[in-house]
Amino acid sequence: MIVILKHDHNPDQLDSLVAWLQEKGIAIHTSIGEANTILGLVGDTSKLDIDLIAALDIVEDVKRVQEPYKNANRKFHPEDTVIQVGNTQIGGGNLTIMAGPCSVESEEHVVAIAKAVKASGATMLRGGAFKPRTSPYAFQGLHEEGIRLLLEAKAATGLPIVTEIMNTEHIPLFEDVDMIQVGARNMQNFELLKELGHLKTPVLLKRGLSSTIEEFLMSAEYIMAGGNENVVLCERGIRTFEPSMRNTLDISAVPMLKSRTHLPVVVDPSHAAGIAWMVEPLAMAAIAAGADGLMIEVHNDPPHAKSDGAQSLTPAQFAALMEKVNGAAAFFGETLAV
Amino acid sequence: MIVILKHDHNPDQLDSLVAWLQEKGIAIHTSIGEANTILGLVGDTSKLDIDLIAALDIVEDVKRVQEPYKNANRKFHPEDTVIQVGNTQIGGGNLTIMAGPCSVESEEHVVAIAKAVKASGATMLRGGAFKPRTSPYAFQGLHEEGIRLLLEAKAATGLPIVTEIMNTEHIPLFEDVDMIQVGARNMQNFELLKELGHLKTPVLLKRGLSSTIEEFLMSAEYIMAGGNENVVLCERGIRTFEPSMRNTLDISAVPMLKSRTHLPVVVDPSHAAGIAWMVEPLAMAAIAAGADGLMIEVHNDPPHAKSDGAQSLTPAQFAALMEKVNGAAAFFGETLAV
Amino acid sequence: MIVILKHDHNPDQLDSLVAWLQEKGIAIHTSIGEANTILGLVGDTSKLDIDLIAALDIVEDVKRVQEPYKNANRKFHPEDTVIQVGNTQIGGGNLTIMAGPCSVESEEHVVAIAKAVKASGATMLRGGAFKPRTSPYAFQGLHEEGIRLLLEAKAATGLPIVTEIMNTEHIPLFEDVDMIQVGARNMQNFELLKELGHLKTPVLLKRGLSSTIEEFLMSAEYIMAGGNENVVLCERGIRTFEPSMRNTLDISAVPMLKSRTHLPVVVDPSHAAGIAWMVEPLAMAAIAAGADGLMIEVHNDPPHAKSDGAQSLTPAQFAALMEKVNGAAAFFGETLAV
Amino acid sequence: MIVILKHDHNPDQLDSLVAWLQEKGIAIHTSIGEANTILGLVGDTSKLDIDLIAALDIVEDVKRVQEPYKNANRKFHPEDTVIQVGNTQIGGGNLTIMAGPCSVESEEHVVAIAKAVKASGATMLRGGAFKPRTSPYAFQGLHEEGIRLLLEAKAATGLPIVTEIMNTEHIPLFEDVDMIQVGARNMQNFELLKELGHLKTPVLLKRGLSSTIEEFLMSAEYIMAGGNENVVLCERGIRTFEPSMRNTLDISAVPMLKSRTHLPVVVDPSHAAGIAWMVEPLAMAAIAAGADGLMIEVHNDPPHAKSDGAQSLTPAQFAALMEKVNGAAAFFGETLAV
Repeated sequence: MIVILKHDHNPDQLDSLVAWLQEKGIAIHTSIGEANTILGLVGDTSKLDIDLIAALDIVEDVKRVQEPYKNANRKFHPEDTVIQVGNTQIGGGNLTIMAGPCSVESEEHVVAIAKAVKASGATMLRGGAFKPRTSPYAFQGLHEEGIRLLLEAKAATGLPIVTEIMNTEHIPLFEDVDMIQVGARNMQNFELLKELGHLKTPVLLKRGLSSTIEEFLMSAEYIMAGGNENVVLCERGIRTFEPSMRNTLDISAVPMLKSRTHLPVVVDPSHAAGIAWMVEPLAMAAIAAGADGLMIEVHNDPPHAKSDGAQSLTPAQFAALMEKVNGAAAFFGETLAV
Repeated sequence: MIVILKHDHNPDQLDSLVAWLQEKGIAIHTSIGEANTILGLVGDTSKLDIDLIAALDIVEDVKRVQEPYKNANRKFHPEDTVIQVGNTQIGGGNLTIMAGPCSVESEEHVVAIAKAVKASGATMLRGGAFKPRTSPYAFQGLHEEGIRLLLEAKAATGLPIVTEIMNTEHIPLFEDVDMIQVGARNMQNFELLKELGHLKTPVLLKRGLSSTIEEFLMSAEYIMAGGNENVVLCERGIRTFEPSMRNTLDISAVPMLKSRTHLPVVVDPSHAAGIAWMVEPLAMAAIAAGADGLMIEVHNDPPHAKSDGAQSLTPAQFAALMEKVNGAAAFFGETLAV
Repeated sequence: MIVILKHDHNPDQLDSLVAWLQEKGIAIHTSIGEANTILGLVGDTSKLDIDLIAALDIVEDVKRVQEPYKNANRKFHPEDTVIQVGNTQIGGGNLTIMAGPCSVESEEHVVAIAKAVKASGATMLRGGAFKPRTSPYAFQGLHEEGIRLLLEAKAATGLPIVTEIMNTEHIPLFEDVDMIQVGARNMQNFELLKELGHLKTPVLLKRGLSSTIEEFLMSAEYIMAGGNENVVLCERGIRTFEPSMRNTLDISAVPMLKSRTHLPVVVDPSHAAGIAWMVEPLAMAAIAAGADGLMIEVHNDPPHAKSDGAQSLTPAQFAALMEKVNGAAAFFGETLAV
Repeated sequence: MIVILKHDHNPDQLDSLVAWLQEKGIAIHTSIGEANTILGLVGDTSKLDIDLIAALDIVEDVKRVQEPYKNANRKFHPEDTVIQVGNTQIGGGNLTIMAGPCSVESEEHVVAIAKAVKASGATMLRGGAFKPRTSPYAFQGLHEEGIRLLLEAKAATGLPIVTEIMNTEHIPLFEDVDMIQVGARNMQNFELLKELGHLKTPVLLKRGLSSTIEEFLMSAEYIMAGGNENVVLCERGIRTFEPSMRNTLDISAVPMLKSRTHLPVVVDPSHAAGIAWMVEPLAMAAIAAGADGLMIEVHNDPPHAKSDGAQSLTPAQFAALMEKVNGAAAFFGETLAV
C-alpha cells in the first residue's frame, strides 16, 4: 500500500501514524520527494482499512498495490481451476452447459425438461426451488419439495443439479445437491457465504446487480477463506440506465475476471436481458469472450411458466441453440463438457 | 393492468390469453381502436407476471396501472405512520436522531459515546454488532457480545437501540433490541424480510445500493405482508458512476418515497458519502427535503475506529451538528423527537 | 398513445384535454372500464409531449405505443441498409474492419499504419484529426493538416477514410472525407447532426456514454430527417459503476439495435475497455453478437502515441487479430468486406 | 504523479521510460522498497497521459497526486469567486435566483413571466431560444427571434438574461446576452467551450448527465484556459438506474464542488426530477447543501408550454416557493441577490 502525504503534513501526526502501523506489524519505507512524501507499507496490508487511512488529516491519497483477495487470485495460482460437479467438470477448457426451468413446478415437468436438455447436450440441470422474487405476492418456489423433484430428475437422467439457496437455515436441505447457487441478490449475504465456505459442495456465485468485479472476487474469497475452493463465478447482467432490457450483460467482465482469477467464469444469457430471442446472440458472445459455461433457462411452455417465462427457451429452441453452441465451442477451442 | 395487442395479432392466441386470464379471476374490458386493441384487466392483477404477458407473441406492450405494493401504499393509508421505538417516535412531524459508532468496540467505548450523543440531543443509539464487510479479513463485529454491550449502553442512558441483523438464525439474539436494522446488502434477502415480518419489533430497512424506489417499497411490503407494520425506510446513498464519493445520496428519494408511502423516511448522511466533513451539508439537505430522521456515525477517536472511521464525527463535531439540526428542524417545521 | 385517466378525474379537465388533442389533429377513442378510463390517441402522436400529458392533474399514466423514430425504424424498412463508403460497404452481411491510429501524427506514420492495416485485411482507415480531450492541456489533434495526411494515406493505399468532426464550422474541411464520425460526446450535439443531415457523406454515429438505445436512434433520426440516410451506428462502451475498465461494452445493444433499425451497427472494442489486451475477446464477442463491423485502433508504437496508446494494438497484434476475425466471420456467416 | 512498477520489471524498459519522461522535462525520484519500486514524478505532469503510462508492461499502477485542473482549483484561489451578471451577482454568499420559461414563446408571454418572477424576487431571467430536443420532430425554439424577445423582456424589467447556446456559429447572436448557458448535452462540446473561453460574457455550465465531478471541472477549465474566468457551475441531475424521476439530483456534488473550486455552484431543481411538485423540496435541499443559486422554470400555463411543461411552476407557485427560499436563505446565512 502506498500512502501519499500532504505537502504540509504535521510531523507529529506522521509519527503517530507510523507508530500505529508498526503496531500492526507493517514495515514502512519512506520516500521524500520534492513534491510529496510517500510511505510504502510492506507486510500484510490486506487488513488495513484503506478508507480510514485516506481520511487522516495528513494524507493526500492512498493506493492499494496488491489485490485484497488471495485465494481467488490468479497471481498465486496461475493455472485454471477445474471444478468437478457430479460427473461433469467446469473450467480448464471445458464449456459446460447448465439448463433447465427457472422454477421447478412438478415432477413430470422437471423430468421432461431434464431429458430434453440432456438430449441436446447439457450436462447439468438447473432449476429453482427457493425463488427470490421482488414481490411477496409472486410464486416463491416449491422449497424442499422442489429439491426433491430435482433429485428425481437427476435420478432419471444422471445430470448433476444446481439450485439456489437463500438462507443458512436451509443448508441441510441441500445435502444431496451437486452445486449450490448463490443468487445475485445474496452475493453479499456474508453469513451465507461463510457457511458455504465450510462445505465441500461446489458453489455457483452470481454477480450482484451493481457489484464491481473486485467485490465479486471478494465474495468468492469469503467462501474460499472458509476452506471451500470449489467456486464458479457467474456474470448475469448488471444494472445500468438502459431501459430496453432487464439488465446489461457485462461481457467485458468475462476476460477481466479470467485475467484476475483462476476460478471458472460462466455466463447466464437468460437473466442478462430477460428476453428469449436475445439468448442466442448473448450466448455466442459469451463463448467468444472466453466463458467456461452457460446457464440457460428452458421451459416446455414458457407462457405458462410460474416465473421468468419471458426469457425461457422451448426445448426445440434450446436444441437449435445447442447446434450453434457446439460449433462455436469448436471454433473457439473449447471442448463441450461431457 | 393495460395490455396493448399487436396490430396483426392472431385471434386464437387472443382467445387463449383471455381464457387464461379469466381462470385467474381477472375480468377483461376490450377496447378496439383503429390502431390498436387494448385489454383492460380488472381484478387482483398484483399476482400476474407482467414480464410474461409482455413476452407473448400477440402483445405489443403491457402497462401496470396500480402499484404492486398495498400495505406500504399511501393511497390506502393517507396519514403518516408514526412508529414507537422504546421511548421515542419516528414519523408524523418528528425529526428523530439516531447516532453512535459504526461498530461496538467495548463497553466503556459504547457507553461513553451513548452518553455524549444523548447529551447533544440524539434519542436513539445506533451501533453495529454484526458487520457486513466486503472483505472476509476485515473486522466482523463483536456479535452477541456487541448486542450485550449496546444493551448496557441503553441501561446507562435510556436510549433505545438500533442494530443490524444479517441472518435469520440470529433473530433470538435481537429479542431485547428496540429496532432491528436490515442493511443495504440485505434489502432483498427475502428470507430475512419474511422472518422479520413475523416479529413486532420495528425494522429500519436500508435501501440497496442499486435498488429502485419501487423495489425498496416492495421489500417493505415483504415485512408488512407478514404482519409487522413497523417499518422505517432509510436512504443511504446509491451506486453511480461518480468516483469522488463512496455513494451518491439520492435526496429526491425522500419526497418521492413520502408521496408514495405513509412509512417514515430517514437519511444516513454518514454512509451516503463516506466522508466526515460532508455529513453536515447532507444532513441539512435531508431535513430540507423532508426526512423524518437522521442516522449519524459518531466515534470518540475516528482514526482508531474498527470500521468506517473515515465518515465518523467526533462527539464535539456531533454536538456542533446538532445545534444546526435543531435550528433546521424548527425552520422546516419539524419537532426534534424526545 | 394510450392515456390512462385517474379514477376520480374532473370531467371538465377531460373535455379540455380532448379539445386540445383534437386541435392537434389527434382522434380519440375512449374506453371506460370499471377501474380506469383509457384514451387511445390515433394520428401522428410523434409530436405530442408525453411528459407534459403525464403531468396533467387528471392523468394517471401515459404509454407510447409507437416508437418515436420513423426513418431509422426497421418496421417501415425491414431489409438491412447497406452503406457504400468509397470502395467498400457496411451492412447486409458484410463485416467491415476500420483500423488506424487514434490520432494522426505525421504523414510517414499514418501512411505506414494504413499500409499495415490494409495488408491485414482492413478496408477502411480510421484516424483522428480533431480530438475531443477531457483536458484542454492534452494534444488536440493536427486539425486540417491531419485530414490532409489521412487523404495522403488514402491516396497511397486506396482505403476510404473515416475521421471525427467536432463542429459545424469544420464541415468544409471534410469535403473529401469518405465517412464523417460523430463522437460519443457529440451524439446529442443536435446542431451538428442537423448539418450532417444536409450532406450525402456517410456518417458514423457513436453512442453517447450514457445514452439509451432509443436516444441513440433519435440522434440517427436527426441526421436522416435532414435527408442523409447513410448512417452507421457504433456501440463503444457505456458508463457504469465498474472501475476496472474505462467503459462497459454493451454487447446486448448490438442485437437490440439490429432488431429495431435497418441501419448497420459496428462495435469499437478499443474504446470500450480502453485496454489493448481486451480488444481481441471483445472483438470476437461483437462478431458473435452480430455486429456489421469493427473499429480498431492500431499504432506502430503505442507507448509513444499522442493519445490512447493504452488501447492501441501494434500492426503485428492487429495482423494476429485479423486471422481470428476472418475465422469468426466465416463461422458466423458474415463476409469480410472487400 | 506516482508510478508503481511491477515487482519483476525489466530494467531496460525502465531506463526507456525514465529517458522518455526526462525528455518531457519531468524529474524522477526513485524509491526502492521491498515489495515495489516507486517512481515519484515531479514537474508539470498535467500533460502526461496517465492511461498510457498505466498500460506499459513494467507498470503495476499509476496514481495522479495533483488535480488536472488549475484555473478552477480552489487550492490556487482559496477565496470564492463572485461573478457579476448585469446588475446582479453570483457567488460569495449571495443566493441568486434565475427563473423563467423553458422556451421563449412570444413577446407577451416572456415579458409577462419576467415581470412575475421579478416581482417574486428573481434577479435573472432564464428562457430558451435554442432548444436541444431528443426528437427532431419536437419544437426547437424560436432561435434569433427568441433572443430578441428575451432582450425585450430585459428592457421591460431590467433583469439580466441567461439563455442556451448550441453551436459556435451562433456566438454573434449572443452579443447582448448577459450570461450564456452551455447545456448538459454540450458539456463536452470542446470546440464550443474553447470559443466561449475567448469571450468575456459569463458562462453557466451545466453538468453532463453522466459526467464526473472532475470532468465537469475540466470543462470549466477549458473555458478558463482561454481567458474567460466567469464560469458558474450548475448541477441539474445525473443519469442513474432510477426510473421514477427523469434524473437523480446529485446534491452531494454541491459541497464537493465547492471544496474543490472557487467557482459558484447553482442547482436546477426543475430539470433534476422533471416534476413540478418536487421543485420545492429539491430547492430547499440545494440551499441547505450550500448552493449559490437556483435555476427554476416558470410558465403561466404549463399544460400548454411548448417544452417541459411537466416541470414548470406557475407564477403563483413560484411566488409561494420564493417565500420559502427567502426564509431558507436567511436561515442558512445566505443573502438573496439583488
